Amino acid sequence: AFLEREEHGSTQSSHRLLAYSDALISIIATVMILPVAHTKIQDNEELKESLQQHLTAKIAVYLMTFLIVTVAWAAHIRLFQVFERIDDCLALLNLACMMLITFLPYTFSLMAAFPDNILGILLFCSCVIVIGLIQAVIVLYGFGRPHLLNDQIQGSQNQGFYKRHILKVILRVPAFCFFAGIFSFVYPLLSYVLLAVVIFFPYISQSLRWCYSKAVGKDEGEISDPMLFYSYHPNEPLSKERVEAFSDGVYAIVATLLILDICEDNVPDPLEVQQRFNGSLVDALQEFGPEYLAYFGSFATVGLLWFVHHSLFLHVTKSTRLMGLLNTFSLAFVGGLPLAYQLTHEFPHNSHNELEAIQISCVIIFFAGLFQLAIWVAALFNQRETLHPFVHYNGQDHAFMLAKLAVYPCMALGTFFVTCVLSRFSAPVFHLAQIGVPFAFLLLRLLVRAALSVLRWLSRPSHPAAPFSDVLT
Amino acid sequence: AFLEREEHGSTQSSHRLLAYSDALISIIATVMILPVAHTKIQDNEELKESLQQHLTAKIAVYLMTFLIVTVAWAAHIRLFQVFERIDDCLALLNLACMMLITFLPYTFSLMAAFPDNILGILLFCSCVIVIGLIQAVIVLYGFGRPHLLNDQIQGSQNQGFYKRHILKVILRVPAFCFFAGIFSFVYPLLSYVLLAVVIFFPYISQSLRWCYSKAVGKDEGEISDPMLFYSYHPNEPLSKERVEAFSDGVYAIVATLLILDICEDNVPDPLEVQQRFNGSLVDALQEFGPEYLAYFGSFATVGLLWFVHHSLFLHVTKSTRLMGLLNTFSLAFVGGLPLAYQLTHEFPHNSHNELEAIQISCVIIFFAGLFQLAIWVAALFNQRETLHPFVHYNGQDHAFMLAKLAVYPCMALGTFFVTCVLSRFSAPVFHLAQIGVPFAFLLLRLLVRAALSVLRWLSRPSHPAAPFSDVLT
Repeated sequence: AFLEREEHGSTQSSHRLLAYSDALISIIATVMILPVAHTKIQDNEELKESLQQHLTAKIAVYLMTFLIVTVAWAAHIRLFQVFERIDDCLALLNLACMMLITFLPYTFSLMAAFPDNILGILLFCSCVIVIGLIQAVIVLYGFGRPHLLNDQIQGSQNQGFYKRHILKVILRVPAFCFFAGIFSFVYPLLSYVLLAVVIFFPYISQSLRWCYSKAVGKDEGEISDPMLFYSYHPNEPLSKERVEAFSDGVYAIVATLLILDICEDNVPDPLEVQQRFNGSLVDALQEFGPEYLAYFGSFATVGLLWFVHHSLFLHVTKSTRLMGLLNTFSLAFVGGLPLAYQLTHEFPHNSHNELEAIQISCVIIFFAGLFQLAIWVAALFNQRETLHPFVHYNGQDHAFMLAKLAVYPCMALGTFFVTCVLSRFSAPVFHLAQIGVPFAFLLLRLLVRAALSVLRWLSRPSHPAAPFSDVLT
Repeated sequence: AFLEREEHGSTQSSHRLLAYSDALISIIATVMILPVAHTKIQDNEELKESLQQHLTAKIAVYLMTFLIVTVAWAAHIRLFQVFERIDDCLALLNLACMMLITFLPYTFSLMAAFPDNILGILLFCSCVIVIGLIQAVIVLYGFGRPHLLNDQIQGSQNQGFYKRHILKVILRVPAFCFFAGIFSFVYPLLSYVLLAVVIFFPYISQSLRWCYSKAVGKDEGEISDPMLFYSYHPNEPLSKERVEAFSDGVYAIVATLLILDICEDNVPDPLEVQQRFNGSLVDALQEFGPEYLAYFGSFATVGLLWFVHHSLFLHVTKSTRLMGLLNTFSLAFVGGLPLAYQLTHEFPHNSHNELEAIQISCVIIFFAGLFQLAIWVAALFNQRETLHPFVHYNGQDHAFMLAKLAVYPCMALGTFFVTCVLSRFSAPVFHLAQIGVPFAFLLLRLLVRAALSVLRWLSRPSHPAAPFSDVLT
């Protein structure tokens, strides 16, 4: 590596640039939950109505931002899989790209506030066009300095082919956005549909083609193309390090947003303490008791969902696009947890709203956990390439991994049904479940071992027959 | 590595656990600037007065949080330098530790709101005590499973000595906090001083001892102790990867907080657009023009300060505690940038407050850049161990690195003095400077080369004399 550096004075490993980009993108994707969580809900309204009235637009902004930013992130991964090394100029171009990506949520806020005005969509289209042009410049710059490219392309005879293919894929989205922008002058609302199609079409079409080939059982030969760059194929590799870094960022920001709310809202006013509580701070803080409980419970939930994700990716050897997509869905629900936290302590105790808030929290946790399980199931379909042998169908840690991944979906489902029956005790049940789960994880290895030996013991009755039949024959 | 895994089924590399902890700690350290930046400042007050009245307490909370959280982070680095591998149990204990660290800012908020009440300080002390106890449990657990320890300790004859030394250092702070907590019942205000001394004393005393030994020129032999764990010595190594990860987190969250403010505050109200601007969204958005400029300028500043940091740490081969400390100071100022952003667009154009806000921004940027330069200077004192030869005193990139590190301090200083003279044009000058700097970085290599050749040309007059004297003799 040092020899390399002395040849081309200013080149450098791209590792840290990518880590920084991952951190930026994960934070920007998640932080848009704050305007949702900060929406004030009136106590006297029904939660369902107020949800529909106030929150739908903001939740839509959050989900759209999360999806689009994740698509931009996937494009960023693809782009930087082309490069092995970077130099100062590429680093600066990448920062310009990041600046525009962090601006995208604002265009969504405008779209949500003024759905009939085309300004939001025009701003969005121009951002995407500029991002695409910067990425094209990055590709051209990189192919002009072949020592920056990855070994596969650097060693290839036909660099021009790679360059044209990559440029074609990168410039397709800006070109469509350009037309969508012009189209928006004619039919403003239809251009939203057009944009959604433009952005998700390659993923959808390739996935359908892949499913079709799986269903028909066509020869896999044509799929094992040596160049899996820029193919939108569900099996296209996605850098495992970057999926981990992005997920870490989301889990970390979600855990931190919780304490930020505590620090901003739950410090009592000195004057109020003097007047209402005769200067007794302890009494004043006791009012916030449920908030602290909700905080510790939510932090434990986020931390343990991270822990499950960490355990899963320890055994993942290669991450594919499909696994990345399922991971994105899981993270989008994790990002909703600050909303769940806000909801579970906003309502008076034992109200109907409180019950609904707790059930919404259960649903969010259930789906966050379920999509984590789905990542593993998707990986198992291709287990030789994507998983460590320990967690294969017959691996020694298969049952343990299944148990780990199943804890949160089961806990959420269980809590949901218990709160339906014991609706008066919904809050204590929910908090008890949240705080009890860490101990479940500590005991999980023991529990799995016990369960397995019980299973073995149950299936044993056939064994004593064997020696007996041995004796008979 | 895989062999190792099969021996001890459940052990794993600690890399991702540390990355996640770094992300959490960096976000929690920085996010406390939000309550400061969200403080509403009345237009008719003088900025200086309102700063003193409203902001002092919140800025103190921010700085205290940043310092204490960084101390906790340094303790976390030291703790996990002991371990090479982790298992599920250690990961869960670490998450419990993180939960308590993220709770520390709340205790500071309480202290700032109720300085005369001992509840805040008691809560803080109990958090620190519990964190210390969890860390002690982690150490005891790790020494009970020696395959988790790092190679140096694992190969050592005297593991018991290491264990006792580490436990002694870890439990010192909780013990002092216990006494500070009891002491707070007697003299509430003095116990703040006691706590500050407890937390910073080991750093200060070791640094003074180190400076003394440098000044007297004592033999360095006794310092090159093979065990530089837990010594508080300024030359004690600090994992370079973790310093980078922590800095990335701070830069990323600062860049993202800016757009969050834009999305929450600068989406106009549909009703207002209808009434004041006759439904013209473009007119309504033009009101926010300065905000967008401030956003792009601030994002460019944060991004480029990250870029300078990245360039510097590319050439750092080993990070020491002193460099870590200077990095912390630099990051504390970077964390202040959202405040600077908020200030530069809050005031009416050409007001006296605007000028002061811009000068405060310059001061923040100046110190952020200056401490980055200080990291390099500190590294140069020990350049053989800490720096790549390229940036040594006579290295080929020495001048280039100096120029990169000097850009921001020079730009901030220059803008400060220009705004003193041309106070009417302070905002345009400031924004021009912020937006012009990226181009300075693009041209920097050319500029440095030009400057060096000019310097060489200026010192050349002695050279023509040489052939001439050759001819003479």
